[in-house]
Amino acid sequence: MKRHIYADNAATTKLDRDAFEAMLPWLQEQYGNASQPYAFARKPREALLEARMRIAECIGAFPEEIYFTSGGTESDNWAIKGMMRHGDNRATITSRIEHHAVLHACKSIEGLGFPVVYLPVDGKGLVTPEVLSQVITNETKLVSVMLVNNEIGTIEPVADLACIAHDHGALFHTDAVQAVGHIPVDVKSLGVDLLSASAHKFNGPKGVGFLYIKKDTEISPYADGGAQEAGMRAGTENIASIVGMAVALQKSVHVMKETQYHLRNLERMIVAALSKAGIDYIRNGQESHVPGNLSLSFKGYEGEMLLHRLDLMGIMVSTGSACDSKNTRISHVLRAIDVDKNYAMGTIRISLGKDNTEEEAVQIAESIIKIINGQ
Amino acid sequence: MKRHIYADNAATTKLDRDAFEAMLPWLQEQYGNASQPYAFARKPREALLEARMRIAECIGAFPEEIYFTSGGTESDNWAIKGMMRHGDNRATITSRIEHHAVLHACKSIEGLGFPVVYLPVDGKGLVTPEVLSQVITNETKLVSVMLVNNEIGTIEPVADLACIAHDHGALFHTDAVQAVGHIPVDVKSLGVDLLSASAHKFNGPKGVGFLYIKKDTEISPYADGGAQEAGMRAGTENIASIVGMAVALQKSVHVMKETQYHLRNLERMIVAALSKAGIDYIRNGQESHVPGNLSLSFKGYEGEMLLHRLDLMGIMVSTGSACDSKNTRISHVLRAIDVDKNYAMGTIRISLGKDNTEEEAVQIAESIIKIINGQ
Repeated sequence: MKRHIYADNAATTKLDRDAFEAMLPWLQEQYGNASQPYAFARKPREALLEARMRIAECIGAFPEEIYFTSGGTESDNWAIKGMMRHGDNRATITSRIEHHAVLHACKSIEGLGFPVVYLPVDGKGLVTPEVLSQVITNETKLVSVMLVNNEIGTIEPVADLACIAHDHGALFHTDAVQAVGHIPVDVKSLGVDLLSASAHKFNGPKGVGFLYIKKDTEISPYADGGAQEAGMRAGTENIASIVGMAVALQKSVHVMKETQYHLRNLERMIVAALSKAGIDYIRNGQESHVPGNLSLSFKGYEGEMLLHRLDLMGIMVSTGSACDSKNTRISHVLRAIDVDKNYAMGTIRISLGKDNTEEEAVQIAESIIKIINGQ
Repeated sequence: MKRHIYADNAATTKLDRDAFEAMLPWLQEQYGNASQPYAFARKPREALLEARMRIAECIGAFPEEIYFTSGGTESDNWAIKGMMRHGDNRATITSRIEHHAVLHACKSIEGLGFPVVYLPVDGKGLVTPEVLSQVITNETKLVSVMLVNNEIGTIEPVADLACIAHDHGALFHTDAVQAVGHIPVDVKSLGVDLLSASAHKFNGPKGVGFLYIKKDTEISPYADGGAQEAGMRAGTENIASIVGMAVALQKSVHVMKETQYHLRNLERMIVAALSKAGIDYIRNGQESHVPGNLSLSFKGYEGEMLLHRLDLMGIMVSTGSACDSKNTRISHVLRAIDVDKNYAMGTIRISLGKDNTEEEAVQIAESIIKIINGQ
């Protein structure tokens, strides 16, 4: 069997070794409940505080603006659903290429009677400030546009969009699940009120994430119950995973420039090899996208077939959307950017991570070329 | 420093060694996203299936009736909030002694315009079938009563209450966070439609739990997004913690009789020692309560002072409610069962676990006696 090449880092990543080791004491002898007042709970309480400070620092926030959640999906659901108020029917505006965590949360509040508007995007997957300006009114409550698209890697002009939202008295949320740990994220320069992140997308553990909530932002608690997370997100704190997330994020941010350089290099190698071999493909998204993302559409192919053939060659990639490839033949994102159907059906997403090597990039390109050339 | 005695197992428990070891592969080399279609995701997918089967078996459910969540609080919030329907104003009935995860979720849906009724309890903390019968109507949508109270250990007559709910066309939810793994729980003989559980209360990891949803029960998804958990609870599966939970639950159920016997013995030892020393106290709750729970009220004392004095002696117990001792001086549970105020203020909860020893029980009793006798 060929060596295993993992190129699906936008779906999930390998837990960083330092993050793993940082988690171990909290899974073993340090099991105290951080909310209890006795001495045995002091260490978990301090670990929680330290993790909050580390994470806040990584995104330019104050520690008390970081709320721990069970992951990106919960953070997105909280941001959208936390805005619902009985009798307040101001609209939520989002885009057509959001992750399902945002899109389906929006469908859900629509079902409860709250209006939602879905913005179109351009051919690169950009939500342009012009489109938002045309739709937004002073009756808009929330604008939610992702920072990086999970399928095609497009980086949205969030700072500009947030300005427009604020000019109309609306709040701004960004799903930054594919951005945090991968590109510089500073909540103050982005000007966002709410920002979602997920640890397992930046080599942290699964089942943990956070929602940044700017001070004084009016949002309902998501999980009601105990007084954890300043009364905003109840539930006994998952210290081990929170500590692992903080270590993973800090490390990702620390080596971000080197990782970006490395990933851009690997991308170029794959694209160059495909072009050199005369393969007929489109690369989706914009020129300046999140490092490591390659959304490639091959004319006359089925994405699923390509995925399975690559799988047999020991290479793991995605087709359609990140988190549930079974759902769609042509994903909502590819439909929104209007990819020629003959190409769109044959789309795969290669998402490279810090552990991928040049040798692997060569092997990925060669394997695709073999499949396309029918070898 | 004296030897550390952990007697706060209703707040959280130590992660079982076998559960910890079962988690390790999923925190290391087996990091694949269980929702992806390639071979690398097969093992996590199988582990997920196996965990679901193991857990279902432990509570007499079908595997497809188990939905993984981030813990008991999320499960409770889901059960309560998942019933909300635009334009459907049928009432939710709950009790005054529920965990805050249920009570505050109920307050939250009240804020959105959905009516809630809070049932009183008797002096032992029992929600009697008579009280429910007086309040329930054919316009009741959901009845939510806990299986075991977290402060005083009272076991509620859930099977009888569920019958009454069904006779009126209402659904029945039970918060079984303090019951699962501690007393036999069979969803079919209880007759419940929804049941919440949390792993870290039965020596599983923090940050994971489940909601049992009986087949064909109409409930909204809690987290919208990807297609995980049959489209009902989106978010990349937290395989490591789910596997750890399954192992911990199976083990707890396997040794339940022995553990119960052991805990009853320790309880008796403590109570007998206090009585023998002529200490003036009340034991709250019913004769037949969850094994290991001792809610004791000492006349003329402050629970917080008792907790801190015990802490200095290396013994960890709770005061007030399990998860946030800071919140109340006299907890909502002690108020609901109408404990004499002179005693109620001096309440501590000792919650023993499988790892506590007879020697520790003696030391706990002796330490309390020392404090009360002013030594």
